[in-house]
Amino acid sequence: MDKIKVAILGAGTVGTGVYKLIERQKTEMPHKIGAELEVAKILVRNKNVARDGIDNSLLTDDFDEILNDDSIDIVVEVMGGIDVANDYIKRAIEKGKHIVTANKDLMASNGSELMDLAGKNGCDILFEAAVAGAIPIIRPLKQCLAGNYISEIMGIVNGTTNFILTKMTNEGMEFEDALKMAQELGYAEADPTSDIEGYDAGRKIAIMASIAFNTRVTFDDVYTEGITKITAKDIKYAKEMDSVIKLLGVAKNTKDGIEVKVHPMLIPSNHPLATVNDSFNAVFVHGDAVDDAMFMGRGAGELPTASAVMGDIIDIARNINYGCNGRIGCTCYKNIPIKNIDDCESKYFMRLQVEDRPGTLASVASVLGNTDVGIDRVIQKTKKNNTAELVVITDSVLEKNFKDALAIFKGMAMIKEISSIIRVY
Amino acid sequence: MDKIKVAILGAGTVGTGVYKLIERQKTEMPHKIGAELEVAKILVRNKNVARDGIDNSLLTDDFDEILNDDSIDIVVEVMGGIDVANDYIKRAIEKGKHIVTANKDLMASNGSELMDLAGKNGCDILFEAAVAGAIPIIRPLKQCLAGNYISEIMGIVNGTTNFILTKMTNEGMEFEDALKMAQELGYAEADPTSDIEGYDAGRKIAIMASIAFNTRVTFDDVYTEGITKITAKDIKYAKEMDSVIKLLGVAKNTKDGIEVKVHPMLIPSNHPLATVNDSFNAVFVHGDAVDDAMFMGRGAGELPTASAVMGDIIDIARNINYGCNGRIGCTCYKNIPIKNIDDCESKYFMRLQVEDRPGTLASVASVLGNTDVGIDRVIQKTKKNNTAELVVITDSVLEKNFKDALAIFKGMAMIKEISSIIRVY
Repeated sequence: MDKIKVAILGAGTVGTGVYKLIERQKTEMPHKIGAELEVAKILVRNKNVARDGIDNSLLTDDFDEILNDDSIDIVVEVMGGIDVANDYIKRAIEKGKHIVTANKDLMASNGSELMDLAGKNGCDILFEAAVAGAIPIIRPLKQCLAGNYISEIMGIVNGTTNFILTKMTNEGMEFEDALKMAQELGYAEADPTSDIEGYDAGRKIAIMASIAFNTRVTFDDVYTEGITKITAKDIKYAKEMDSVIKLLGVAKNTKDGIEVKVHPMLIPSNHPLATVNDSFNAVFVHGDAVDDAMFMGRGAGELPTASAVMGDIIDIARNINYGCNGRIGCTCYKNIPIKNIDDCESKYFMRLQVEDRPGTLASVASVLGNTDVGIDRVIQKTKKNNTAELVVITDSVLEKNFKDALAIFKGMAMIKEISSIIRVY
Repeated sequence: MDKIKVAILGAGTVGTGVYKLIERQKTEMPHKIGAELEVAKILVRNKNVARDGIDNSLLTDDFDEILNDDSIDIVVEVMGGIDVANDYIKRAIEKGKHIVTANKDLMASNGSELMDLAGKNGCDILFEAAVAGAIPIIRPLKQCLAGNYISEIMGIVNGTTNFILTKMTNEGMEFEDALKMAQELGYAEADPTSDIEGYDAGRKIAIMASIAFNTRVTFDDVYTEGITKITAKDIKYAKEMDSVIKLLGVAKNTKDGIEVKVHPMLIPSNHPLATVNDSFNAVFVHGDAVDDAMFMGRGAGELPTASAVMGDIIDIARNINYGCNGRIGCTCYKNIPIKNIDDCESKYFMRLQVEDRPGTLASVASVLGNTDVGIDRVIQKTKKNNTAELVVITDSVLEKNFKDALAIFKGMAMIKEISSIIRVY
């Protein structure tokens, strides 16, 4: 029986999960891939620190030991970061090793270059775990749905913010309190910026858009807006409108180019994405043949992420057995322009604090009319101190027109505060 | 540029969809599969009947024309039925042609034999469209989730019954009226037996269970119960319990063997499957690493089904290009026993019409106690004519114990009618 050997770079949460899963599936592998699968080495910073459940003799702190071991076929990069990971992966590919990575930061920035290099060396580089954790989405897009022109891909792809928004929705918590709870439970990092500002989701939607639309989309192309300004009051209004607020990564392939954005959005409670709660992720796809499809599952965690990595390892192992590595490489063969955010259209929810006197609503409506921003709905509730809260839901309008209206509102004395702006599905 | 040639058996809804999709994707294929893709022949009953949008010269009524054309690489079987389709597919495989089929009846009965034959001939036989239409589920199970021990797979895999139950839920219709509407809209066939009795769902869950558990499960192994006995009143009770009724295919891999069933089920409104309405399908999977995952999409229709067929064609074309056909064949390498339905456990919702006099509830409760059927909840509402409606929700109990209780109830004068029995999630 052949033996396929794997090296794991990193023994953190995901690395440990991958090791466990390979051990757990030992007796299955000969049936599934026609070979035995074995972890040969695990790269760590300090090989003298014992790791629970991992044989100490597998640990190494010297990448060259892995690089120069010709019996190692597959390198699993789960160490994170960009520069060192990029360097290790490139050197491994140049040695003819196949790569599995869960590194979205790296794939969103250097993916194109790495896939080119892998292609030239007849190597596979797979990264199912880099987007939406355990959820099969890269392979469905590259294979199952490859007969479609995909026009839209939209997802809840950050578990931290989904946990925070779920807590705000179900328990009426304010953002700061929900964030604190997420940090205490280990769902949010000490520095939560990348999650709560939408950067993490931005990297994932860039990767998914590239694959869905067969054109290179990088993180720099993505307009990002986080959830830090969402308040319990906004959530309450959403409920009144039978909607929920979710942080979405949204990419559309329009006739004028690609729109790619991350922002909070009001979506109707009966939309399939609305029921995706806590740390679950989900990706919604629309194609000309498949129509609507959705994929839901765990977005992170030791074994869920390892599940996605393991699927990639098995794919590569089958390719090795059939001598067809590189069978599905980079699928970006188009060069579609990215639209400027100003030229994108959205419906908006806007919450204003205005002077509570006759004529205010007429003035607001007039500004919107003059900037070509249609109104779908208005809700006005009177508050104390001569201030009324005015909620306007616009039609689907150009971002630049809406920005013009906001600029005018900022100069109007009767508008005391622009409390919230949230896009609406 | 190489050319890969396809023959389509059948020019019905799906066959026409596949033809359209191949035409629509013509300019994309060289990029996606490294070759041109061309429909060479379409097998029909009468080649003199013109078909909208299809070049008449492609039509043939002679299968041998396809069989003996060595330039045809892939045969797409979308004619349906078992015997003729089976014969054509076998002969095509023996000629070294690769197969894509959307035929769940055939795959549920003859799948094992056909996959063996394909394996021996170095051919691919793919059937993503046979289960849950457009939804990628076979490939995710065989590849993305292949690093898991999957313990449960559960799905709404019949659009007709889901449409009927959705109408009954949202509009309070009775079964017969909703069925009639489904027939008028073309969602149900003139003879709807296979759908409403759960046979169609049974074939699909048999195929999915085989792949998920790596062991052969056939339609004969599946316990089936349809939706013909579900009433508007049952749906109303479900609503009161914040639940919905869905027809589910359920397969579990337990330590005592495999449970595989199709039956209506009360599921909580906040379960992801509860929001899958109308003719949408969804499949829910639980694995030891992935945890919970769900796949949702169109379960039928010309282009959605063609989308799944096209994914398979592209997969085979890539295998042809890399010389690795047969790369993923039959994955049933285990031989796990199937449990008898009597040894399966369920929670039950039971609606009884009983004599409205003191002691009735005590007698009912005593029978359940004596047959080892625990009670979770009782709802009693008084009706006219000295008859009370009694709803009992049991604990999770053995099917055979529950049957014992029912047999005793049938002999009790005070129990006038057993109106409904529905399993509960």
